[in-house]
Amino acid sequence: MTAVTSTLPEPALRATGEALQDTLVDLLGLSLIGKQAHWNIVGPRFRSIHLQLDEVVDTARSYADTVAERAAALGITPDGRPETVASRFALQSPKDGWLRDTEVVHLLVEALESAIGRLRTRIETTEHSDRVTQDLLISLTAELEKQRWMFQAEDWPREG
Amino acid sequence: MTAVTSTLPEPALRATGEALQDTLVDLLGLSLIGKQAHWNIVGPRFRSIHLQLDEVVDTARSYADTVAERAAALGITPDGRPETVASRFALQSPKDGWLRDTEVVHLLVEALESAIGRLRTRIETTEHSDRVTQDLLISLTAELEKQRWMFQAEDWPREG
Amino acid sequence: MTAVTSTLPEPALRATGEALQDTLVDLLGLSLIGKQAHWNIVGPRFRSIHLQLDEVVDTARSYADTVAERAAALGITPDGRPETVASRFALQSPKDGWLRDTEVVHLLVEALESAIGRLRTRIETTEHSDRVTQDLLISLTAELEKQRWMFQAEDWPREG
Amino acid sequence: MTAVTSTLPEPALRATGEALQDTLVDLLGLSLIGKQAHWNIVGPRFRSIHLQLDEVVDTARSYADTVAERAAALGITPDGRPETVASRFALQSPKDGWLRDTEVVHLLVEALESAIGRLRTRIETTEHSDRVTQDLLISLTAELEKQRWMFQAEDWPREG
Amino acid sequence: MTAVTSTLPEPALRATGEALQDTLVDLLGLSLIGKQAHWNIVGPRFRSIHLQLDEVVDTARSYADTVAERAAALGITPDGRPETVASRFALQSPKDGWLRDTEVVHLLVEALESAIGRLRTRIETTEHSDRVTQDLLISLTAELEKQRWMFQAEDWPREG
Amino acid sequence: MTAVTSTLPEPALRATGEALQDTLVDLLGLSLIGKQAHWNIVGPRFRSIHLQLDEVVDTARSYADTVAERAAALGITPDGRPETVASRFALQSPKDGWLRDTEVVHLLVEALESAIGRLRTRIETTEHSDRVTQDLLISLTAELEKQRWMFQAEDWPREG
Amino acid sequence: MTAVTSTLPEPALRATGEALQDTLVDLLGLSLIGKQAHWNIVGPRFRSIHLQLDEVVDTARSYADTVAERAAALGITPDGRPETVASRFALQSPKDGWLRDTEVVHLLVEALESAIGRLRTRIETTEHSDRVTQDLLISLTAELEKQRWMFQAEDWPREG
Amino acid sequence: MTAVTSTLPEPALRATGEALQDTLVDLLGLSLIGKQAHWNIVGPRFRSIHLQLDEVVDTARSYADTVAERAAALGITPDGRPETVASRFALQSPKDGWLRDTEVVHLLVEALESAIGRLRTRIETTEHSDRVTQDLLISLTAELEKQRWMFQAEDWPREG
Amino acid sequence: MTAVTSTLPEPALRATGEALQDTLVDLLGLSLIGKQAHWNIVGPRFRSIHLQLDEVVDTARSYADTVAERAAALGITPDGRPETVASRFALQSPKDGWLRDTEVVHLLVEALESAIGRLRTRIETTEHSDRVTQDLLISLTAELEKQRWMFQAEDWPREG
Amino acid sequence: MTAVTSTLPEPALRATGEALQDTLVDLLGLSLIGKQAHWNIVGPRFRSIHLQLDEVVDTARSYADTVAERAAALGITPDGRPETVASRFALQSPKDGWLRDTEVVHLLVEALESAIGRLRTRIETTEHSDRVTQDLLISLTAELEKQRWMFQAEDWPREG
Amino acid sequence: MTAVTSTLPEPALRATGEALQDTLVDLLGLSLIGKQAHWNIVGPRFRSIHLQLDEVVDTARSYADTVAERAAALGITPDGRPETVASRFALQSPKDGWLRDTEVVHLLVEALESAIGRLRTRIETTEHSDRVTQDLLISLTAELEKQRWMFQAEDWPREG
Amino acid sequence: MTAVTSTLPEPALRATGEALQDTLVDLLGLSLIGKQAHWNIVGPRFRSIHLQLDEVVDTARSYADTVAERAAALGITPDGRPETVASRFALQSPKDGWLRDTEVVHLLVEALESAIGRLRTRIETTEHSDRVTQDLLISLTAELEKQRWMFQAEDWPREG
Repeated sequence: MTAVTSTLPEPALRATGEALQDTLVDLLGLSLIGKQAHWNIVGPRFRSIHLQLDEVVDTARSYADTVAERAAALGITPDGRPETVASRFALQSPKDGWLRDTEVVHLLVEALESAIGRLRTRIETTEHSDRVTQDLLISLTAELEKQRWMFQAEDWPREG
Repeated sequence: MTAVTSTLPEPALRATGEALQDTLVDLLGLSLIGKQAHWNIVGPRFRSIHLQLDEVVDTARSYADTVAERAAALGITPDGRPETVASRFALQSPKDGWLRDTEVVHLLVEALESAIGRLRTRIETTEHSDRVTQDLLISLTAELEKQRWMFQAEDWPREG
Repeated sequence: MTAVTSTLPEPALRATGEALQDTLVDLLGLSLIGKQAHWNIVGPRFRSIHLQLDEVVDTARSYADTVAERAAALGITPDGRPETVASRFALQSPKDGWLRDTEVVHLLVEALESAIGRLRTRIETTEHSDRVTQDLLISLTAELEKQRWMFQAEDWPREG
Repeated sequence: MTAVTSTLPEPALRATGEALQDTLVDLLGLSLIGKQAHWNIVGPRFRSIHLQLDEVVDTARSYADTVAERAAALGITPDGRPETVASRFALQSPKDGWLRDTEVVHLLVEALESAIGRLRTRIETTEHSDRVTQDLLISLTAELEKQRWMFQAEDWPREG
Repeated sequence: MTAVTSTLPEPALRATGEALQDTLVDLLGLSLIGKQAHWNIVGPRFRSIHLQLDEVVDTARSYADTVAERAAALGITPDGRPETVASRFALQSPKDGWLRDTEVVHLLVEALESAIGRLRTRIETTEHSDRVTQDLLISLTAELEKQRWMFQAEDWPREG
Repeated sequence: MTAVTSTLPEPALRATGEALQDTLVDLLGLSLIGKQAHWNIVGPRFRSIHLQLDEVVDTARSYADTVAERAAALGITPDGRPETVASRFALQSPKDGWLRDTEVVHLLVEALESAIGRLRTRIETTEHSDRVTQDLLISLTAELEKQRWMFQAEDWPREG
Repeated sequence: MTAVTSTLPEPALRATGEALQDTLVDLLGLSLIGKQAHWNIVGPRFRSIHLQLDEVVDTARSYADTVAERAAALGITPDGRPETVASRFALQSPKDGWLRDTEVVHLLVEALESAIGRLRTRIETTEHSDRVTQDLLISLTAELEKQRWMFQAEDWPREG
Repeated sequence: MTAVTSTLPEPALRATGEALQDTLVDLLGLSLIGKQAHWNIVGPRFRSIHLQLDEVVDTARSYADTVAERAAALGITPDGRPETVASRFALQSPKDGWLRDTEVVHLLVEALESAIGRLRTRIETTEHSDRVTQDLLISLTAELEKQRWMFQAEDWPREG
Repeated sequence: MTAVTSTLPEPALRATGEALQDTLVDLLGLSLIGKQAHWNIVGPRFRSIHLQLDEVVDTARSYADTVAERAAALGITPDGRPETVASRFALQSPKDGWLRDTEVVHLLVEALESAIGRLRTRIETTEHSDRVTQDLLISLTAELEKQRWMFQAEDWPREG
Repeated sequence: MTAVTSTLPEPALRATGEALQDTLVDLLGLSLIGKQAHWNIVGPRFRSIHLQLDEVVDTARSYADTVAERAAALGITPDGRPETVASRFALQSPKDGWLRDTEVVHLLVEALESAIGRLRTRIETTEHSDRVTQDLLISLTAELEKQRWMFQAEDWPREG
Repeated sequence: MTAVTSTLPEPALRATGEALQDTLVDLLGLSLIGKQAHWNIVGPRFRSIHLQLDEVVDTARSYADTVAERAAALGITPDGRPETVASRFALQSPKDGWLRDTEVVHLLVEALESAIGRLRTRIETTEHSDRVTQDLLISLTAELEKQRWMFQAEDWPREG
Repeated sequence: MTAVTSTLPEPALRATGEALQDTLVDLLGLSLIGKQAHWNIVGPRFRSIHLQLDEVVDTARSYADTVAERAAALGITPDGRPETVASRFALQSPKDGWLRDTEVVHLLVEALESAIGRLRTRIETTEHSDRVTQDLLISLTAELEKQRWMFQAEDWPREG
């Protein structure tokens, strides 16, 4: 007997669970690299990007919590331990040491773009497995697409 | 030339930098395992410990930020990326899946106790290398010792 | 002539209206039994569950208002009068008198589970009749599933 | 043995208990019909009365909680379940469907007047059985008499 | 090369872009006529409707911002300049000079009804082109339908 | 000549003064033993009761201030010095050292019950000597009876 | 037919009405002389008493509103027009021009003492005519007795 | 020697002092009649005008304080005692007893119009005697003209 | 008969009315182009200017409301409808599409400079027609001159 | 070419610039001597004047910022560096060491009186050079005259 | 086995425990005598010192809590029961009855000075036994030294 | 006899007093030059640095107050008068007139670096003279080192 039973039938449960677990890893990883850039950024846009990164981190942490609790609510145990995050994190990660502000802007555009692409696939999947989870992923995508735009708008004119 | 110069002389800088980097890893790891327990805990004390864990996570996140910015302020680049946290994290970590409330209480007592022991050593070290950093580690120790007490007080009577 | 006309065509209107009216009764009933348990609970988890029940009541009251105003917005008169709530309420209700904390936890898991099952059917129905109403029912389901998880997590280990 | 003992002697307890239970039903019923009118009102004073009704509902809900917890504090189990409220509610209740604003004003004046008359009797009773409960009923009466005045002042000139 | 690239493929992008741009014009126009009525209204319901109009304006302004930033997030440049709003605005607009309160109520019912009809079409379109945008339009429709109900409820009894 | 004259005649003043001074000692003592339990409690309900005790302390401190200032307002000098509190405190006091959570619950039920019994006598006395003071004692009794219920409800099932 | 009917029978109504009307005049007058002293005070305690007077004025204004609305709630029209306040005001009033701080302290002690004496008589009267009004006058007396003490405590040592 | 000397020369001081004293009486009187109407109003616009009157009262009280302190700041003693307000108040005052909502609207339009006319004369006078006082009277006029508009807009169509 | 009469004589009224109407159009236009730039800006100063533009928009919206209500208060109907704003707007407007951050800075300096020049003329005019309106235009000019400075300070060094 | 151009013509600019620069020095100096007195005051009115001085300092700092930014807005560079403040400060300054409370009161009356006299001259000057700046100086004068009154009212009776 | 183990070795633990327990008694005693003086003070500085005493009480209560929880965190049971506070309290205590304001000022200077002297010794002790506790005692000393200064500054000129 | 006696012995007092007085001058000077730069900065980073400078000024003002009150608490009179600040200020000061943003960044890095160097020496000194003062200087150093880092991070890449 499991501690928390599910309100979803089996195959829907598995598909939904995977979508939530993968999103959790993306968000926890994003919150760590967002802070890494927040601390190590240098350059004339230091203050402006330093503050903007904390908005990314707040978004990532807040949705990580919602996503993990959504998994638990469906009877699926979320896994956000350090080794899990490290081994499954698939977005771009910054290099060690100080980071030039322009590098940070590029990094965030890329990391957010990957995260969004992965989310759009999960929106498709959960359309059939769980509309409630799908709705959560849609809201998250809206937030990350807004963040992506704001970093890309900083990155102009850019070399093609 | 480095992006941020230091107000500390070389050997003091190295010792202080190590103390800060190691503390950062402890705190980021603690914030991740605190959330892991927050999501996966089950048992009659679910709500009470679920809420208490968020106070640990808030403390860990807030001090992680202060500690990393203290490193940057001394011209040392903090490293809080996923792989760094995973590979260097030295405190107790929960097993996968649902966690019984009594297990969570034990885990937190142990993890906090390890963190405190390591911090007390760093307080000694930084006495000689940087009084400003030492003061920060003292405040953090006070917070973690308070958290340790509250989890241990939950854990009574216990098997010897 | 009706006081408030509808922006929905007739068959869609009827299906949506029923979904909203039935949800309204579930929520008003839930708010009453949540308060009943809040006042009559006894046992070692008194304070913890007493507080948690007020979160259920707040959720139920707030969504009842939104659901009833959604009906009115579509030109359908919502009915939340005492006799209507009593005669149509279909979830589990507590017995008279003091309630042991473990009983309260079971009761809430069951009542929330019934409410969720009924909502999931209405999410199917309103997919075809009114996407705006569907979106509201999806948010409500997310909230109630979260509440259900938290009560079930309190209820462990339990007899199979 | 009862779960909660009383600080009042037996006959005083019974009289006080009845006064509190009857008041609880009046208030829960009032909160439901207040919301019913809030949702179904139409006419040129829609917005003004719609907002005023929420103040009645807030008063009724907040005092219902205080009254029920006062009963529990005296060792009496309050009963606010849907079927109890429906079967014992003795104030005026609105008809089904849209309600003209003038009708709503009349309804509230009448319902509040009945509630006040019943409370004034209970103030007499509790003078001898429990001064603490009496003080609570006095405050509640002051609130409802203020609400009654404001609805009656809206209702002028009126047909004799 | 464009300043902000899109996460949507081409045909979906065009359809979504049109839906957002048309919604932006509706909302900016609505905010202007809402204020116009707020300033020019006269009659015995002056204060009540004057206040209600500011809620419409707040809704319109806040969603206009979200809608325009959604367009930008998709790499589409939103156009909310005075001449664009004036030339493309398709809802009812008030006449010059003082406006009787009853006229204002009619005007708002009509303008909101048009806006809602147009939004319901765009909800259909974006179902296929962008679920994230569709979700935003659904929330906006819920808000405007609520506002429409409140103005129509004010408008009773009315000449058929 | 006294520094502050009284608005009450002599015998009423003496009776009222005694009621207030005795209540002051009860409340200051209660605030001290409440904190003692708050600091020394251990057991699985640590966090829940630890927090609840601070509500008792807040109530006791806030009413102690009101009661003492009421005495001063009547021209009677309140005495809340350490030796006065210690020598006249008549409620139950905890033993030295760690306190098991179940012990704390019992202690609070008993201490509050004694305080309430003493207050009910003073409500009788001040009915004849000063209605204004009586009203204050009635409010305080309501608060302490609510606290007593909540601790007793925690204490179930209990040995007869 | 009167605009607002009463929930009190005739003789009780008259006695209660007089008590409320007389209290209203005392409070409005007190608010005016409190402000007069606030503006015209001079002397080394200027700032301290200047601030304290605003607390008297706030109390007087807030209770004047409650008292007048209590009259209206009983179907009695309160009269707080300038000429009524001037012709019926019976408390001490300051002389024209600058006022020495010691004078202000004396004036307030006297004015508050008169107001309290008059209120204590009305508490007796309303015991028989309306317990709800009596409760309001008791609270007001508590407030004014607190203010009187604070001004008299300022006035020491004083000439006998 | 006076307690507070002036920063203005003599003739300017007298003219400014009169303007301020007369404005003070207008505002204190306005605050009293505003409250009188707030308490005694009846009719279908009761709630709406009842709330609006409190905004007039807040404006009048707040500016009365500023105006009186401006006088004191110039070394002129302001006089706001009951008998002064009653004997010098020159605006329209309501009749005794309940007031029909339409009457209240007319009364406020008239009273505000008189107050504004008197203020416009004082703006002329203080142009030459004290620009600082003039600036204060200009702000006050803006506020009262806004209030006048809102009451007159309520009063339409009206018999001409 | 007009709905709202004026407190100003005829020629003064016309001049004041024109000054207010023209200012209203400037401010509504400014709020639209400020938002247009807020949404379409790109370049390395994106975040900084994006945020600053919202301060311009807030200022413009808030003063537009005050200016329009000032007109209404004088009995003049303000006109802020889409077509009016579009046809009479005389400040610089941005081109369609993405806007480089440097362009946005230039645009705002120019638009604000035009608006200020026009306001300074109206300050002259209203000196003779209405001092109350003049005072409002002076405050607005102070705000816009502050905004102009901040954009021009961003624009350095610049080509002559 | 200057970094910030001016919206004022040359001679007006110079006169306005001088008025602003001189006011800036007065305010920065006042904020420093206000703090000096705040820290060094002794005597029975210590607490009361200590708090009042912080209100002077807050006023001085806040207006210094507004005045300096007004200068910048006109294209004039404000100068508030330590040496400028020290060499041009023309108001009374306290002696070194502890300051008796009566001395502090005298000092503030004198310093504020000088500041006000100088401001009144600048109000004359800016009438012709810049009405916007004049309006700012008028508001500041109102604040300082209020502060002067409050200190002088403390200083009574005083030796002639 | 003890309920809460310690992170400190034995001799350090005993020394630290004594320092904390003694500080706890000083602070609880100080909070009681601070309130005693707050209630019984008379004289021309009544209001000013009455308010200042509440700041002492707030400081004492807040640090008492921190100090006691620090003891618990180290595995030492704090003792703050009435009899303990009374028998071990070593600072100056006020006499019974009304207290002249000058007496209160002297009393506080003396009591705070004793407390500070004792704390400075404990700062020495804990330097060797526990740096974390030492840091807490240093912060507390800073607060009490600030309070001592403010009371002594009130006490000037004084008899040598 | 001095107004405020000291809790420190003589030589410790002198050393501590000098450390505090010198720090006070550094902080007051820093607050003045921070504001000077805040007002006079020009260049593409205007807004970002303009805002950051206000954080420096807030830190400097807040610590200046704490440092000066720490001196007073030890019986040492702090000196923060204009001439003292000007003559003893030893950090970098900006030139007159507009300041390029890059210049401002350099200036702040240098001024903060000097201030930090001076503080580190005083931390050494006060280790022996007063641990309480030392603790304050340590906190201040942490704040200024954080500010220094943020300005230096803005200043990259820089010429070596």
